[in-house]
Amino acid sequence: MIILGFDPGLATLGYGVIYKDEKHKPQMVDYGIISTAKEDNLAERLVKLEKGIEQVIEKFKPDEIAIEELFFAKNVKTGIAVAHARGVLLLTVMKKCSKIFEYTPLQIKQALTGYGRADKPQMQKMVKTLLNLKSIPRPDDAADALAVALCHAQTNKLGKLFKI
Amino acid sequence: MIILGFDPGLATLGYGVIYKDEKHKPQMVDYGIISTAKEDNLAERLVKLEKGIEQVIEKFKPDEIAIEELFFAKNVKTGIAVAHARGVLLLTVMKKCSKIFEYTPLQIKQALTGYGRADKPQMQKMVKTLLNLKSIPRPDDAADALAVALCHAQTNKLGKLFKI
Repeated sequence: MIILGFDPGLATLGYGVIYKDEKHKPQMVDYGIISTAKEDNLAERLVKLEKGIEQVIEKFKPDEIAIEELFFAKNVKTGIAVAHARGVLLLTVMKKCSKIFEYTPLQIKQALTGYGRADKPQMQKMVKTLLNLKSIPRPDDAADALAVALCHAQTNKLGKLFKI
Repeated sequence: MIILGFDPGLATLGYGVIYKDEKHKPQMVDYGIISTAKEDNLAERLVKLEKGIEQVIEKFKPDEIAIEELFFAKNVKTGIAVAHARGVLLLTVMKKCSKIFEYTPLQIKQALTGYGRADKPQMQKMVKTLLNLKSIPRPDDAADALAVALCHAQTNKLGKLFKI
């Protein structure tokens, strides 16, 4: 089964692709980012994101897609920009794949480290270890997306079907 | 010239259509809402919004589109939901129309009443008066969308081309 994880963002939207079957540990297939330029207006950036998301889905043909929920107590303005991008992400995946799951940052941390307050370096190290990689995936957004995919692979059907 | 105004929202997205030429006052063409059910998941609601927005644009073939900017100091959670919907709105209009403008709530109030702190009843009364209607358009979201369209008709090219 191919699982595609997404870490939502406007400037940088991360994706991570893993393969998982019943007998083996999850394997890394690919990861990367879709990026948009700050100089472009918001509508243009959203169009670019949609195109990039479509290309990733068409390339890897995922069986299931996992998306990180938004969480931001820190910066409302950034949160609003990310929410615009996440709206486009949800719209686009919904039209391409019927199996969409979402996980909170807490769920992802707990699934990978067993600890809901794990920090970024701890999470990245677990992504490297679980996927048996030689180095930590870069940039951070791609590593975060692999973490979402791994969370789904581990919790699997326990993760609630996407609802808010 | 046909101007289409949008008031972004997830549960209720308002639209208002007006006709304007050089010689006459703006005339109301149509108004309404696109609504989505709270029982549906967010991704499904966004797909429904996209379809509704496309239908409105195809029906009225606007020359220019005006969209209200987000403003919410009150409720971050509501703001995030609206921002998801607004992302889909911007994506969809951008693919259908090259002339998109945006206005802040302050700009819309000033354009219609000359007063940046006008309240909702004052604004709705001005929409009724400016478009020579027999009654105030309902629901509020549709009246708000007509106000955005009227704001664009009045400020016209003075309104900044959509950029954030």
